[in-house]
Amino acid sequence: MTGRRAAYTAARSLTVEAAETPPLPAGHVRIDVAYTGICGTDLHIYHGDMDGRVNPPAVIGHEMSGRIAQAGSGASEWRVGDHVTVMPLVWCGGCPACRAGHAHICHRLAFLGIDAAGSMQSSWTVPAATLVRLPQDMRLDHAALAEPTAVAVHDVRRAGLRPGEKTLVVGGGPIGLLIAIVARQSGADVLLAEPDPYRRSVAESLAVVTVDPGAGSLAETVGPWAGGAGAAVAFEVSGAAAGVAAAVDSLATRGRLVQVAIHPVAREISLYRFFWRELTLLGARLYSREDFEAAVRLIAAGEIPAQALISRIEPLERAAQAFQALESGAGVMKVLIDCQAGGEGGAR
Amino acid sequence: MTGRRAAYTAARSLTVEAAETPPLPAGHVRIDVAYTGICGTDLHIYHGDMDGRVNPPAVIGHEMSGRIAQAGSGASEWRVGDHVTVMPLVWCGGCPACRAGHAHICHRLAFLGIDAAGSMQSSWTVPAATLVRLPQDMRLDHAALAEPTAVAVHDVRRAGLRPGEKTLVVGGGPIGLLIAIVARQSGADVLLAEPDPYRRSVAESLAVVTVDPGAGSLAETVGPWAGGAGAAVAFEVSGAAAGVAAAVDSLATRGRLVQVAIHPVAREISLYRFFWRELTLLGARLYSREDFEAAVRLIAAGEIPAQALISRIEPLERAAQAFQALESGAGVMKVLIDCQAGGEGGAR
Repeated sequence: MTGRRAAYTAARSLTVEAAETPPLPAGHVRIDVAYTGICGTDLHIYHGDMDGRVNPPAVIGHEMSGRIAQAGSGASEWRVGDHVTVMPLVWCGGCPACRAGHAHICHRLAFLGIDAAGSMQSSWTVPAATLVRLPQDMRLDHAALAEPTAVAVHDVRRAGLRPGEKTLVVGGGPIGLLIAIVARQSGADVLLAEPDPYRRSVAESLAVVTVDPGAGSLAETVGPWAGGAGAAVAFEVSGAAAGVAAAVDSLATRGRLVQVAIHPVAREISLYRFFWRELTLLGARLYSREDFEAAVRLIAAGEIPAQALISRIEPLERAAQAFQALESGAGVMKVLIDCQAGGEGGAR
Repeated sequence: MTGRRAAYTAARSLTVEAAETPPLPAGHVRIDVAYTGICGTDLHIYHGDMDGRVNPPAVIGHEMSGRIAQAGSGASEWRVGDHVTVMPLVWCGGCPACRAGHAHICHRLAFLGIDAAGSMQSSWTVPAATLVRLPQDMRLDHAALAEPTAVAVHDVRRAGLRPGEKTLVVGGGPIGLLIAIVARQSGADVLLAEPDPYRRSVAESLAVVTVDPGAGSLAETVGPWAGGAGAAVAFEVSGAAAGVAAAVDSLATRGRLVQVAIHPVAREISLYRFFWRELTLLGARLYSREDFEAAVRLIAAGEIPAQALISRIEPLERAAQAFQALESGAGVMKVLIDCQAGGEGGAR
């Protein structure tokens, strides 16, 4: 049996090709992938920045939805046709992080779509333990947002966000906007800082209050908005040095800064301000199963405006073009790959 | 009525002189100061580094013990002869920090001994609200350690330290050593990193396990000591860039770093490591009344080895020489000023 897959072969090269379906190991399932979203990490891989971890040719992709096509032995609770998404983490169970109850950041974590084959293919074989059940009536394009929504749920939980808290989100890409929406759903009073006018317009269309951080001092905007006290919580989702500095400067006494974005280089931080105002910095990475299931519930309940976040859906055959469009950055939020379609895609 | 005071007049100048006792305002008490300890902040002032905040001539000093000499109207619960120490904080009650329950880091905090007259004088007038009662049988030289011990209690509480946790203290001056002792008293398994051999010897004499951070990679020492997982908690008390980096590198997954030392310049921090291991950074400053009262109880119970921490007691007349001795740094831990004595002091 053959399917199709988009294989990352070298920096800025993605080849769509036939793929043999492997035999199904015990405890595994085979999924007919419906949709795979492209995330920032996929773009990093596409740029060749993660060749030390990804072994080309490699099928990437980890934000997905699909239907069970075959359940192996030891995966008997799953039926052909069940709608599912995958929490793409395989942990070791024995390292200090796993033993301390933080398996999601296992020291030997295998991340499906980076360290092992991902979902940008028509048929994907995964351990049954990674499956998360979807309501059968949930739209599968919307369900492909479960993974980034789980990131947002985890980040908001890590902040210990309380209703009414003034919450600054620095960076309004898909994760930043999802954090803003989940934080608001948790009762926070949210301000989203994002320089790109298109991304601000998407957020504003969802009634998220935005500010252009390039238009002046962010801390000076936050001041009056937060009644002179500063923000109780800030999420750093920009990955920029200026974003970190603005978040630190915007926090109230005892404010919490959740570090979501990846900063490949060390950043200059005012430890004096952390001392003076007794601030807290919390690193946040990935999600637990609890976060993932909460994300599915939020999408199912219509709390996540999935339709507004999905800018384009492209067929698998046009995966390379989808990466190129996303790379340009302008005018797109989330791009999905339709992993069963071979035809023409486009904007929606 | 006149007394004696040590007045900071300019960088590296301290003048001991006669002082008129001011009239006693309502709600205030006059204390015959027994002992005043010299802390790192006092040294900064002495070096002229805080002339923007201190207005010379200024009486500094805020680690103290003494006896009530006179209680004004509105301070009727205090009797002449009562043994006391002072929590040297006067907050405004109306700023965002005060309103949020964090008065100890009030945005308009007045710190006695920096922003107003301190205790390095024979007679000190303070608001009765700042008094903390001492057991009458507690040695007043030991009681002068209540303030730095309160800092340590606050820092350990801020860490949320749990019994058995592997705890690294980076920096073994008086505050670092007090943190090590309070953390150990809370059930933690403590390792103290300190480059100075004398300070290490004081710590070792108190059965605190030490390591010389100059002898190799601190993280590599912590690794095996913490069973390969890293430290659950680190306290950064060194004020050095290398101390921060070593603390961050030494932490286990979900480890907490309490920032105690003052870093006047921004430090390069690996936010990537905070993200990857979901670390937490907690700024910690000063203490609440609860911390201060806990510190007095710990000293009263003999849990703080006060005798071993006090390197020298000098009479008020020799305050300048005491600062000079402390400045040299070698062979001293805590130096106290005997504020009633005019004669010769010395090592003990």
